Amino acid sequence: MLLCDIGNTSYHFLDADKDYKRDVQNFDASTIKERVYYICVNPKIKIILKDLPNWFDLSKKLDMSKYYETMGVDRMVASEAIESGIIVDAGSAITVDIVKDGVFQGGFIYAGLRAMRETYKNISSALDYEFNFDIDLEKLPKNSTDAITYGYLKTLYSEVKSHNLNIILTGGDAKEFAKIFPDAKVDEHLVFKGMKKLISL
Amino acid sequence: MLLCDIGNTSYHFLDADKDYKRDVQNFDASTIKERVYYICVNPKIKIILKDLPNWFDLSKKLDMSKYYETMGVDRMVASEAIESGIIVDAGSAITVDIVKDGVFQGGFIYAGLRAMRETYKNISSALDYEFNFDIDLEKLPKNSTDAITYGYLKTLYSEVKSHNLNIILTGGDAKEFAKIFPDAKVDEHLVFKGMKKLISL
Repeated sequence: MLLCDIGNTSYHFLDADKDYKRDVQNFDASTIKERVYYICVNPKIKIILKDLPNWFDLSKKLDMSKYYETMGVDRMVASEAIESGIIVDAGSAITVDIVKDGVFQGGFIYAGLRAMRETYKNISSALDYEFNFDIDLEKLPKNSTDAITYGYLKTLYSEVKSHNLNIILTGGDAKEFAKIFPDAKVDEHLVFKGMKKLISL
Repeated sequence: MLLCDIGNTSYHFLDADKDYKRDVQNFDASTIKERVYYICVNPKIKIILKDLPNWFDLSKKLDMSKYYETMGVDRMVASEAIESGIIVDAGSAITVDIVKDGVFQGGFIYAGLRAMRETYKNISSALDYEFNFDIDLEKLPKNSTDAITYGYLKTLYSEVKSHNLNIILTGGDAKEFAKIFPDAKVDEHLVFKGMKKLISL
C-alpha cells in the first residue's frame, strides 16, 4: 500500500516510512500496480487518476462540510491530522490553517519562498536579493536584504504568533521556515498522517 | 518653483497645492524651464536630470548617515517629514519606515498591491482572485478571496500595528489601504512635505 499527496509540481509518495517525489510532468501513474491512496489538488492529474482502479481518492472520506468549497484538499487533510494548533504548510504557496478541538477555524494563503523572491525582483532590480533566514526579527532592518526578508517573514511571523497556538510546520520549505519559527514542530509527514487517519475511518 | 518626486513609473509634480503625474517613459524633463527641486529613485532618469541646470537634486541636502546606503531616497525624505510614527508608503512596493523623536529606526519592504495580485495568480489559477478591501481582518477566512486577502493584508496589518505608533499612509494606493488601517492618517503629500523641509534647511 502506498500513500500519495499530489500537488501542482509533484507526486509525493509514502511507502511505509520512506517518502519520495516524482515530477507531475513526466511520471506515469499507470506504472504503479499496487493499491495507492491519494489526494490531489492538480486538476489535470485528477482526470488521469479517475481511470486507474488501484488509485483510491481519499478525499471521498472527508467530511467536506467542515471546510469550504474551494479549499485545497491537502489543507483539509493536514487539518484532520491535528487536534489543535496552527499549521504552516510552506510550499509554492504558504497555507496557514487553524484547528481548535478538532474543528477547522479558518485559514489564509501567503506567497511561497520562490514566488516572493521573484515578486521583489520584478518590482525593482534594487530589490533583487536572497532572503536572509538568519535574520533577527526583533530588530528593525537597516539594509536591503533584511528589509525584504523582514517584509516577507516578520509579517507572517507576527500574524502566526498572534494566535497563541502550537505551530506545526510542514511542506517542502519547512526546514527553512523552522529558522524563523524556532519553537514550531516540523512534521513533513503531516498530510500523510491525516491520510492514514482517513483510511482508518 | 516645482517639486518633483520621481519613482520607477512616474514623475510626481507639486505646483503650489496642485499635484500631477507624468509617465517616465515619455515625459521630456528638459521642456520645463522653471526651477525644479527633485528626488529620484530611477537610475535612468537620474542621469538625464544631472545635465539640466534648473533641476536641483534635493538628496544632496539629506544627512545620509541617518539612513542606510541602499535605502530609497523617497523613504528618507518621507521619514524627514515626521517627528514620530510609522510610515506606510503603498506604491509598486510597500515601504514601512519607523521614526522616533526624529530618528530613523529602520524599516522594511513588502510587495505592492499589483505585484502581489500577480504573485498569487502565478502560483496557481486557483488563487486568481481580486483582493477584498472590505474584509473583516478579525475573522479567520473561510473562502478563497478572503484567504489570499488576509494572507496579504492581515500579515502586514499585524506587524504595523505591533509597533504601537501613529500610522501615516502615503503612496498611490494609500486610499485603498486606508480601509485596512482605519485609524491611519492619509497624507499623499508626505514626501513633498519632507522635500519642503529640506529646502528650508
